[in-house]
Amino acid sequence: MFQFKMLGTAAGGGFPQWNCSCAQCARCRAGVDGLVPRLQLQAAVSDDNERWFLLNASPDLRVQLEANAALWPRLGGGLRNTPIAGVVLTCADLDQVLGLLLLREFQPLVVYATALVRETLEANSFFRMMHRVPEQLRWVEIRAGEGFQLGESGIKCTPVVLAGGLPFYAREKETGVAGQASVGLVVEADGRRVAYTPSVPEISEELRAAYASCEAVLVDGTFWSDAELTRTQAGTPSARAIGHVPLSGADGTLALLAGLDVERKVLVHINNTNPILDPESAERRAAVEAGWEIGVDGWELNQRAL
Amino acid sequence: MFQFKMLGTAAGGGFPQWNCSCAQCARCRAGVDGLVPRLQLQAAVSDDNERWFLLNASPDLRVQLEANAALWPRLGGGLRNTPIAGVVLTCADLDQVLGLLLLREFQPLVVYATALVRETLEANSFFRMMHRVPEQLRWVEIRAGEGFQLGESGIKCTPVVLAGGLPFYAREKETGVAGQASVGLVVEADGRRVAYTPSVPEISEELRAAYASCEAVLVDGTFWSDAELTRTQAGTPSARAIGHVPLSGADGTLALLAGLDVERKVLVHINNTNPILDPESAERRAAVEAGWEIGVDGWELNQRAL
Repeated sequence: MFQFKMLGTAAGGGFPQWNCSCAQCARCRAGVDGLVPRLQLQAAVSDDNERWFLLNASPDLRVQLEANAALWPRLGGGLRNTPIAGVVLTCADLDQVLGLLLLREFQPLVVYATALVRETLEANSFFRMMHRVPEQLRWVEIRAGEGFQLGESGIKCTPVVLAGGLPFYAREKETGVAGQASVGLVVEADGRRVAYTPSVPEISEELRAAYASCEAVLVDGTFWSDAELTRTQAGTPSARAIGHVPLSGADGTLALLAGLDVERKVLVHINNTNPILDPESAERRAAVEAGWEIGVDGWELNQRAL
Repeated sequence: MFQFKMLGTAAGGGFPQWNCSCAQCARCRAGVDGLVPRLQLQAAVSDDNERWFLLNASPDLRVQLEANAALWPRLGGGLRNTPIAGVVLTCADLDQVLGLLLLREFQPLVVYATALVRETLEANSFFRMMHRVPEQLRWVEIRAGEGFQLGESGIKCTPVVLAGGLPFYAREKETGVAGQASVGLVVEADGRRVAYTPSVPEISEELRAAYASCEAVLVDGTFWSDAELTRTQAGTPSARAIGHVPLSGADGTLALLAGLDVERKVLVHINNTNPILDPESAERRAAVEAGWEIGVDGWELNQRAL
């Protein structure tokens, strides 16, 4: 059976965020008002409950693996083993790749990524730690628009072109060609399709078509408004400047996807500044009334909140 | 009052380790036999309970900060703030520096490191993410044998020469000069001294003298035996080859430090393979009978287990 799990639903920094004393983070730390902590974004998929594939690799990955028994090594599977059969990367952002460096310990790993994302990571000296035993890291090149099978599983994955560029640390490698630095994913198995796009710089026609073909869409819920991050500290960028369409406004995600008719629409990659984290906020109410679920750690395709 | 806390006591990979199904990891996951989980190595010190200094920066740092209220941002301290006043690096190992990349979010940070460790990290493109706002990362150079003050605190820190070299990912920068790539620390405040040496490639006379001057010593407890890691997987290195004197044997840490007369001797940086993790093991008994405490997350200088 096709399984799609969210092991973390916060944007980079998590919720609460280590250096933030805003009302939301403070209330979350105090355990009041239903503000639930969230680990940094992480998804995992399987179609047999034996082999699992990670979608990106969060900095919180070690904790996320230990918190989910399905991802533990198998007893009787050899002294060192893991059900993790591969990792699909949608970009080279630190918050989506640092977890790869936690999967060391001489364990062979298959990583699916575009040529540009691979090149960006291989240029980074830390990744030499993934080449300490032969075949430790095996790269499989993926291309926007071309479906590929996840290992020996029955899961098919199709990268969708996104406009986003390479992260700040690798900006000199930027090609300007969409779909090389950043892709969305349509993941399908057992005749069911899920779109996974935690970072959406623009809602293109292609993306809209991909969404419409799916049973569930997991969509960039980073910011409510464009100025939200800037308000935390002078000099920090706007939502759109760092590749996130905000949720609100006439040109925001809720408005642009108002007509989208799919079974489940879920907001993920939620920044600590986003008022939808507060169950009592007007913004949460607006999102829920527009038919969106607010992603939460432990979310599963095959389970619905009561 | 001088405080010295251990927020994590495991070696790289943590305990249990994500890809390990050995009896110790399996029993730890099952919650039986007193095998307590441990996060990856992390220490924090303070002499006023307001400003804290981290000793290295673990990959588990985000979770470690949220689990310790003393390290939360202060209410009324501004929207974004942190009690973390600085980070002292003893080496450039991934397991000791990756946490720096978790302390982003445009937050200014002071990092104390040798020139070689700084150069190694600054050569890595990921660290550009620490230069997104002016003065975000401020480096303070430290040198073996030269004491320095931690910020405005009353804590003095003196790096002790260690023989260790640069990690595998930066081996071409190796100078071969001891005390540049790796140092121990003697941390002192209020007339109390603690030695922090989670990675000990050799027990030198200098190190022995530093230990003897302290009230407490926190010492490399990574491996019980030299062949312990190799036994998990063919092709993996011995304990000594990766810079850790094992605990056992005539040339092991317990024997070499048998005559050390200090108030508290604590083993930290304990690998998942080390049998001292098991409270019922003969190895644990031998270590305890030799006067050693087995480090555990939450260990504090000012608290003693009953």
